Amino acid sequence: MTGNTFGKAFAISTFGESHGPAIGVVIDGCPPNISFDADLVQTELNRRKPGQSAISSPRKEAEEFEILSGVFEGKTLGTPIAIIVRNKDVKSQDYDALKDVYRPSHADFTYMLKYGIRDHRGGGRQSARETVARVLGGAVAKMVLNTLGVRIQAYVSSVHDLEVSKSYDELDLNLTETNVVRCPDETLAQKMIAAIEKAFDEGDSLGGTITCVLSNVPAGWGEPVFDKLNADLAKAMLSINAVKGFEIGSGFTGTRMKGSTHNDSFASLSGEIRTLTNHSGGIQGGISNGEDIYFRAAFKPVASIKKEQNSVSTGHENVKINIDGRHDACVVPRAVPIVEAMAALVLADHYLRQNAYGMQPFA
Amino acid sequence: MTGNTFGKAFAISTFGESHGPAIGVVIDGCPPNISFDADLVQTELNRRKPGQSAISSPRKEAEEFEILSGVFEGKTLGTPIAIIVRNKDVKSQDYDALKDVYRPSHADFTYMLKYGIRDHRGGGRQSARETVARVLGGAVAKMVLNTLGVRIQAYVSSVHDLEVSKSYDELDLNLTETNVVRCPDETLAQKMIAAIEKAFDEGDSLGGTITCVLSNVPAGWGEPVFDKLNADLAKAMLSINAVKGFEIGSGFTGTRMKGSTHNDSFASLSGEIRTLTNHSGGIQGGISNGEDIYFRAAFKPVASIKKEQNSVSTGHENVKINIDGRHDACVVPRAVPIVEAMAALVLADHYLRQNAYGMQPFA
Amino acid sequence: MTGNTFGKAFAISTFGESHGPAIGVVIDGCPPNISFDADLVQTELNRRKPGQSAISSPRKEAEEFEILSGVFEGKTLGTPIAIIVRNKDVKSQDYDALKDVYRPSHADFTYMLKYGIRDHRGGGRQSARETVARVLGGAVAKMVLNTLGVRIQAYVSSVHDLEVSKSYDELDLNLTETNVVRCPDETLAQKMIAAIEKAFDEGDSLGGTITCVLSNVPAGWGEPVFDKLNADLAKAMLSINAVKGFEIGSGFTGTRMKGSTHNDSFASLSGEIRTLTNHSGGIQGGISNGEDIYFRAAFKPVASIKKEQNSVSTGHENVKINIDGRHDACVVPRAVPIVEAMAALVLADHYLRQNAYGMQPFA
Amino acid sequence: MTGNTFGKAFAISTFGESHGPAIGVVIDGCPPNISFDADLVQTELNRRKPGQSAISSPRKEAEEFEILSGVFEGKTLGTPIAIIVRNKDVKSQDYDALKDVYRPSHADFTYMLKYGIRDHRGGGRQSARETVARVLGGAVAKMVLNTLGVRIQAYVSSVHDLEVSKSYDELDLNLTETNVVRCPDETLAQKMIAAIEKAFDEGDSLGGTITCVLSNVPAGWGEPVFDKLNADLAKAMLSINAVKGFEIGSGFTGTRMKGSTHNDSFASLSGEIRTLTNHSGGIQGGISNGEDIYFRAAFKPVASIKKEQNSVSTGHENVKINIDGRHDACVVPRAVPIVEAMAALVLADHYLRQNAYGMQPFA
Repeated sequence: MTGNTFGKAFAISTFGESHGPAIGVVIDGCPPNISFDADLVQTELNRRKPGQSAISSPRKEAEEFEILSGVFEGKTLGTPIAIIVRNKDVKSQDYDALKDVYRPSHADFTYMLKYGIRDHRGGGRQSARETVARVLGGAVAKMVLNTLGVRIQAYVSSVHDLEVSKSYDELDLNLTETNVVRCPDETLAQKMIAAIEKAFDEGDSLGGTITCVLSNVPAGWGEPVFDKLNADLAKAMLSINAVKGFEIGSGFTGTRMKGSTHNDSFASLSGEIRTLTNHSGGIQGGISNGEDIYFRAAFKPVASIKKEQNSVSTGHENVKINIDGRHDACVVPRAVPIVEAMAALVLADHYLRQNAYGMQPFA
Repeated sequence: MTGNTFGKAFAISTFGESHGPAIGVVIDGCPPNISFDADLVQTELNRRKPGQSAISSPRKEAEEFEILSGVFEGKTLGTPIAIIVRNKDVKSQDYDALKDVYRPSHADFTYMLKYGIRDHRGGGRQSARETVARVLGGAVAKMVLNTLGVRIQAYVSSVHDLEVSKSYDELDLNLTETNVVRCPDETLAQKMIAAIEKAFDEGDSLGGTITCVLSNVPAGWGEPVFDKLNADLAKAMLSINAVKGFEIGSGFTGTRMKGSTHNDSFASLSGEIRTLTNHSGGIQGGISNGEDIYFRAAFKPVASIKKEQNSVSTGHENVKINIDGRHDACVVPRAVPIVEAMAALVLADHYLRQNAYGMQPFA
Repeated sequence: MTGNTFGKAFAISTFGESHGPAIGVVIDGCPPNISFDADLVQTELNRRKPGQSAISSPRKEAEEFEILSGVFEGKTLGTPIAIIVRNKDVKSQDYDALKDVYRPSHADFTYMLKYGIRDHRGGGRQSARETVARVLGGAVAKMVLNTLGVRIQAYVSSVHDLEVSKSYDELDLNLTETNVVRCPDETLAQKMIAAIEKAFDEGDSLGGTITCVLSNVPAGWGEPVFDKLNADLAKAMLSINAVKGFEIGSGFTGTRMKGSTHNDSFASLSGEIRTLTNHSGGIQGGISNGEDIYFRAAFKPVASIKKEQNSVSTGHENVKINIDGRHDACVVPRAVPIVEAMAALVLADHYLRQNAYGMQPFA
Repeated sequence: MTGNTFGKAFAISTFGESHGPAIGVVIDGCPPNISFDADLVQTELNRRKPGQSAISSPRKEAEEFEILSGVFEGKTLGTPIAIIVRNKDVKSQDYDALKDVYRPSHADFTYMLKYGIRDHRGGGRQSARETVARVLGGAVAKMVLNTLGVRIQAYVSSVHDLEVSKSYDELDLNLTETNVVRCPDETLAQKMIAAIEKAFDEGDSLGGTITCVLSNVPAGWGEPVFDKLNADLAKAMLSINAVKGFEIGSGFTGTRMKGSTHNDSFASLSGEIRTLTNHSGGIQGGISNGEDIYFRAAFKPVASIKKEQNSVSTGHENVKINIDGRHDACVVPRAVPIVEAMAALVLADHYLRQNAYGMQPFA
């Protein structure tokens, strides 16, 4: 009811405020006897953590995780896996000035409207620090998916007006992690970095998009009505802080195509049924068809900027506001592992859900 | 687990195949003592039904609904409201030719992969006829929201490359229902109708977009983490057949703005806190802030076209396919009430969820 | 949230008021490709229906069911199965006298407290007529369980102070359906019938107990913490109208045993691990162990009696009340198929839930 | 799906193995702005903890709790409250001998059947140590209920064949905590203590019953079909380790009464509607009626005994087993706060659920 849990069969529940003792996750529904890959967890945390590069927030978090349950002698038990990360580099006094003012385009105001109370330090629960828990959960989901050979690869496809022109299958996605902006187009990556540095110097922020590719997903995953695989992916993405849009397959561009062009013709290739194009984005009627699933998420420019802004106080007076905390000028590069984590959670959930009904896919 | 239910506190469960005996819905969680507005139900069904105009499918369905439970002497009882609509004008023989072939970009193939069985007649459960049940549920959600003065208005904002250039607040949304294409820009509406007729003559299909505006939504609705109001709206939209994209507020365009421009400054106007712009689309941190909520959904061109297509048989042989059924060349106008229904369901659900925790909004 | 749905993976949602148009169920999560056994459905309905014998209510319901969805050419589709039974023999005027009075030990009063509105005709949704929907759902659950060889057998083990002295495994449960009171002890059955007839003549009512045996249940079903198989069975039973108690295995008697006697010793019999006694009732730590599961449910005497009673009006005045409707003097015999249905629903749900996590039981 | 979560609106999710790093709970759905009563939490933990008296297990746990989230400046935030208790006095080597053998009437065997893996140390997740998390959650539920004046009082009503003969309303429940066996009948309490000590000396164990009284519960709580207040209480109780039975109100005894005696006559007392008797146990049709709710749970004798037993090895060989760990001869006294915690969770959940639908109770 409170929306702190995501997933039905493979589910995570997250908890924690930005400047509270810890951020944590309970991963429920992980099958037993999966080898627990602690390195993968740390790798994913590192990809998300602040201070990882010149273009990210200077908050320093070692992001050491502690497993509290569910893993025994290196294997999952089938019981809930609880993992926490302590909040260490909290400078709550930085936020004292914000106690009595609502930051524009932040959730300070709506939290107060909803709850009548808020932890103003570092944004409390509204902080993107909550996504630490998602990355932890996503790492475990990846462990499950790895046993099936499913691959999840996200990358930055645009920063502000700098947009990758090639489609995902024309790029070498192995290059994504070779630069700090996580864009596999090396030339554009350098321009993006320069743009982000410039925005930082100006005390401003930039948005962008992330494209995510799910390959080797078995056919038959996803439920055909409300829990379409694409619908759950859309929700997963829009649940990430700062995401304002989602499109899958042909997306908004597809609205300008005609059916005769948009339809993905089937062909039997050596007896295997495949589609000759993939405007559907690997999902038809909400169910995976075995082709690549690809989608794009839109991130608005982050709300925390250094420039002076007009706002109001908690006492309803008009005030000027200057935000001094440690912020990214562009969160999109650090959001890449978060997008992957949420996608992994959707897939792991639908994998188990399809198992429940026991059908072996055939055609 | 099967995704035939939508919502947590105000929830609908839908059932029915396109050519089965009936399509139906169970609406669970409707508060007691709400006046049941049967006219509203019929109005919404009529807006969705086939054969309503020259540009929609000739399938003739009176769409008479029968209430099976939950309403007594014109009031809701607080118990489940079950409503069914019988399928009458079924010409299942039209689909005999499709029994052994998979239609491109339809869910025939993925249903077979998932279930190993399908009702091929009229698409079975994968048919958009399932949305009759959503419109029924949405009508009841609207009854609840009407008691609060919440207003839901959707309209066609583009067909193929014909796009409304004005933003929603520059249009007179009362004009939406004055033309069959449901576009409040009268001049463009005529062009859209002509384009749809041309596509129909060519045996082709067109996509488009629908914009939806939710006004007078109380502040404080929506849960801040996974069940953000925007995340649930995204899922709601992507769960509609043919939808491939969603954006809220500034959406994809917002990714090209800078934070200093994108941020919605707060101002205290006569002591009431408002935002001076609304790039956020009425939601901050997943919670409504009292401003208009507006979003856009992208519909691909419908997959059923008359032009000959390449496909495969259920026996995995390459075949040519010609689809003869009764189809719309552009479903977007008929999808307007469906978009509204799904949005109403999201809002009614979050209304009750916020009630559960008993807080009175204040600021 | 409203508790009209039971089950997580195999779930039923019921709807309908006693004197409304219909009672119905949506069965969600039934695996595809199960042969639909319509005879089984009718048989179960007949076992539950009023007027089936001299000792049951004279309300005459043919209890004809109509399948609205989810079944195609005799097989389940994997989509929701909606089934309804029309209410035909409604004599709502019988209840006019009860419109303004609260019947003792009925839910008239609490419904009014909860909802502020109620359908007083025949008890509305509070009527045990709602269990028609459970029997429909249970019949489909049995179809699933039948494919696994699981057997569900309930019988009347006591009426008032007439109690079967033998344990379930000393009885021939095939005799249960040979008498109208559904007690496999033939001699006691006749005494029970006489007692019920006497109570009927006195305008009074009798309670009793039902014992239920689940045999051939695979080991490994049930979740070890909150959704213990025994916990879900307890909830299932207590959710049936008039049930006031539940015990499994040694139950209340077991509280007077010592651990050294109560513990079920394991033994390896031809390499298969079995228990030498079964005080646990086939479940250890909430998980089935492969032995017989047996439990007992306590039914209070039904509240509708003809004797004059003291009560109050809806206007809060003290009144005398005489109830004239058509009632059973003892509902316990007709509750046997309801107990079986609820048990079947619990088992089918846990079967699918165990499937989700993909483990093959081994030891 | 895995049953590690209890509740729908006010929900707890528990995690942790007996000898793992910690036992924990995430409490989700606690309303904001509730004063957090840390003393209450510690008091409840102390009532449950081992080593609290001469008749309980000598395992020494300080049971210090740490709040990880959801509480700020002494108030609940409305966000998830995570609390953990570290496992300190773990003597895992005590369990080495049990690694390869299944203890009779324990869940060792069924865990292995279900998961194919288990943490054998101290019973892992099957250990009643998991109930630490329930007590934590229950304490927070009590904080919510305290704001409404709801009172929850459980006590030991029997140990083995020593049974309190008075009904709950003839006892002074303030005496419950004055003796280590938690029985408000002081004379019987001493006999119970003697019996437990004797069983301990014999290396045996005893069962018993706990009666629980919920007073001042507002009318209108509980859902009328599957989630009857009594059904959820039954599930709550049967989910506690070692519980084999549940009865509410007249329970099993009521099956031997006639309707004319069992029915609770209504009377208008100074305009307030009350019942003159309370065989219903404060719940009619699954909904609270404002009278005291009382029920009884049956605990089997605990399975861990020192006497030699017959069992089997994981290799399917017949073996003798001697269990040396630190165990209670009778867990019933320590289960009193667990019963209260589970009852509190059920009530808090139904309180919020009733809020969701916004009705103000009236009659």
